[in-house]
Amino acid sequence: MESKLVECVPNISEGRDLEKIARIVDVVEAIDGCTVLGVEPDHDYHRTVITFAGEPDAVMNGAVALIEASILELDMRQHKGEHPRMGVVDVCPFVPLRNTTMEECADLARQTVHIVNQRHDVPLFLYGAAASRPERTVLSHLRKGEYEQFQARLSGGDTIHTDHTRMPDLGATEWTETVAKSGGITVGARPILVAYNVNVDERGAKVSKKIGSIVRSSGRLLKSDGGGKVRSRGMLTSVQGMGVPVDELGISQVSMNLLDVDACPLHVAFKTCESLAADHDVSLCGSEVVGLVPLQAMLDAGLFFDPEASDDRTLVTAAMDGLGLNHHHRFDPHEHIIEWALNSEVKP
Amino acid sequence: MESKLVECVPNISEGRDLEKIARIVDVVEAIDGCTVLGVEPDHDYHRTVITFAGEPDAVMNGAVALIEASILELDMRQHKGEHPRMGVVDVCPFVPLRNTTMEECADLARQTVHIVNQRHDVPLFLYGAAASRPERTVLSHLRKGEYEQFQARLSGGDTIHTDHTRMPDLGATEWTETVAKSGGITVGARPILVAYNVNVDERGAKVSKKIGSIVRSSGRLLKSDGGGKVRSRGMLTSVQGMGVPVDELGISQVSMNLLDVDACPLHVAFKTCESLAADHDVSLCGSEVVGLVPLQAMLDAGLFFDPEASDDRTLVTAAMDGLGLNHHHRFDPHEHIIEWALNSEVKP
Repeated sequence: MESKLVECVPNISEGRDLEKIARIVDVVEAIDGCTVLGVEPDHDYHRTVITFAGEPDAVMNGAVALIEASILELDMRQHKGEHPRMGVVDVCPFVPLRNTTMEECADLARQTVHIVNQRHDVPLFLYGAAASRPERTVLSHLRKGEYEQFQARLSGGDTIHTDHTRMPDLGATEWTETVAKSGGITVGARPILVAYNVNVDERGAKVSKKIGSIVRSSGRLLKSDGGGKVRSRGMLTSVQGMGVPVDELGISQVSMNLLDVDACPLHVAFKTCESLAADHDVSLCGSEVVGLVPLQAMLDAGLFFDPEASDDRTLVTAAMDGLGLNHHHRFDPHEHIIEWALNSEVKP
Repeated sequence: MESKLVECVPNISEGRDLEKIARIVDVVEAIDGCTVLGVEPDHDYHRTVITFAGEPDAVMNGAVALIEASILELDMRQHKGEHPRMGVVDVCPFVPLRNTTMEECADLARQTVHIVNQRHDVPLFLYGAAASRPERTVLSHLRKGEYEQFQARLSGGDTIHTDHTRMPDLGATEWTETVAKSGGITVGARPILVAYNVNVDERGAKVSKKIGSIVRSSGRLLKSDGGGKVRSRGMLTSVQGMGVPVDELGISQVSMNLLDVDACPLHVAFKTCESLAADHDVSLCGSEVVGLVPLQAMLDAGLFFDPEASDDRTLVTAAMDGLGLNHHHRFDPHEHIIEWALNSEVKP
C-alpha cells in the first residue's frame, strides 16, 4: 500500500510583506518530509494560502512550525484586509489525501493545538471534523465578530456568540499582549476542496451570475411580497459558486468551490454550466483549476470525455482537453495534480 | 384525534366508454364510507383516474369492488391507448392522508390483492411501499413489456424481465382466457402526489422546457462527444417535470408532479419557476392544481405569501392569490382541497 498522505492548507494573515511570508514558508520547508506545493499571497485580502503535504506526522510538525513562526512574525494589531479573519493563522485545516481518514486528520488537528498550547499562551479553536461540538463545526460561525470583537468576547463583554462558540477549545482565555498580537488561531480537518472556475464567453457577468445561483448547492433565495422566504436547492452537490466578470480576459466565470469532488466531479460542474449557458445562447471557453486537484478527479473527468482511454496520462490529457484547462488559463499536470506535484517536488 | 383517512387513486384501462366508467365508479360509491372525489377519463390515453377517500377499511372495500367491477367490465384484448398499461386496473395505490402510516397503506394493498385472489384467478402485483422486494418498487419497472408481452412473460418465453420482476406476487401464473382479459393488476401504496402546473407567459414552450429540465429532480442529462453520460440533479426535490405548450391559452406550462409536497411545497415550485423564467425576461401567469391537494400544502403556501395570516380560510386565500390559481384556471377550494372536498361531499 502506498504511504499515507495528508495535505495542510493554512491561511495566514499576511498577504503583502513577501519577505515575512517567505520566512514563514521556510520553516515548513525545513521540516523533513513536508513538501510545500503552493504559496498564494493576496494583497487585498492581506492573506496568504499556503499548501503543503506529506505523511501525517511530518505535516503535523509543519503545521506546528508554521503556527509558531506566524505567532512570532505577525501582529494582528496592525492587520486590515478584505477577508474576514480572527488571528495570525486564521485557519489551518488538515485534509486526508491518501490512505488516511478524516478522523486521523481531526486527531492531527487536536495534537497540533495541544503542542502549540504547551509553548504559547494563545487562544486555540478546533473546527470542521475536529470541532468539539456541532455548533463549532463551521469556521465562519467560530470567527463571528472577527479580531475586532475578540477582546470583548474573551473578557465577558458584549458578544454575538453563545456560550457554545464564545471561548477557545484550548489556550489563553484572557486578553493579554500576546493574545492581542496573535488573535485566535483555528485548526481543524475537512475534506479536500477544489477551486474550479468555468469560463463563460460574455463580457460582464449577466449569464454567469444566473448560472452561479442555479448551480451552487444553496440554490436561490425565494421571497414573497409579504416577507416570506424560502430556498430552492442548486443543481450541484456540495458546491459554493457565483458568477464574476473577468474583465482582463473579456469573459466571465462561474467561480466555484467543489467541497466534495466525489459528489460533484469537475466534468459535472463543467457540463452543467455549459448546458445552462446554452439556454442563453452563450458558449463556454474552457475552465480553470486554481491550485491543486486530486489525480482521481482528473481521471474521472478523463473517463467522461474519453471512455476508451485507460492509462493515467491519456485520461489526464482527455480531461484537460474536455474541460479546456489551457483555453484561457494554464494547467500543468505536474504542478496542479497533487500526486504528480508531490512526485515532481520530491525527486530532485 | 380526527378519524383515519386514506385515499385510493386507481387508474383503469378505459377512457372512452363513459357508461362503463360510470358503472365501475358506481360500485365504489355504493360502499359505505367511500367518497368519490374525482373521475378523470382521458380519451387518448384510454384510461381513467378515479380518486376516492375515507377510513381505511371502507377504502379497501372500495378498491376490491372497483377491481372486481373492472375485471367484469373491461377486456384488455380490445385495449389500445397512448399510456403504458398492463391490465384492466393498471395501478391502484393507497395513499395515507391523515393519522395513517405508509405501512398501514401497504397492508391495505396486501389485503386487497389477497381478497381479490380468493375470488378471481388473475395475476396480482404489489408495488411502491407494498413491494415484496426493492426491484419491484417502481411501477414502470414492473410494467415493462406491457400487456402485449405479458403472455410470453408468464409462459416462460422471451422477456426483458429478470426473475425478480417477472412473475406476479399472487394469483394466476399461467396464461388463461381470464388472464388474457384482465392482464396484470398492480396494487400498492405511495405518498400523496400533487399534480401542479406553473403557467409561463410565452407561446410555444421554449422557456418552460428549459425550466422543466432545471427544476425536475432528475436534472439534466450531460453527454460528452466521446459517449460519456452523467446527470446533474434538479433544483426541486421529489419532482417530475417538463415544459409543454398550451396552445389554446397561448401560454406554456412547466408541468410537474410533486411526489412529496412536504419536500417541495407548492410555493417553492412556483417561485423557483418564476425566478428561472425571469432569467429569460419572461413572466409567469398563475398556476394550476390538477385534481386534489392536501390542506396543509395550501396552508404552507399561504403562510409564505402572507406570514401575518393565521386562520385556514385567510391562508388558503393567500395561497390562491400568491400562486395565481384562478389566473388561467379555476380553483375551488371546496373541490380541490382534499379535506374540504370530503366535508362538502359527506355533508348532504
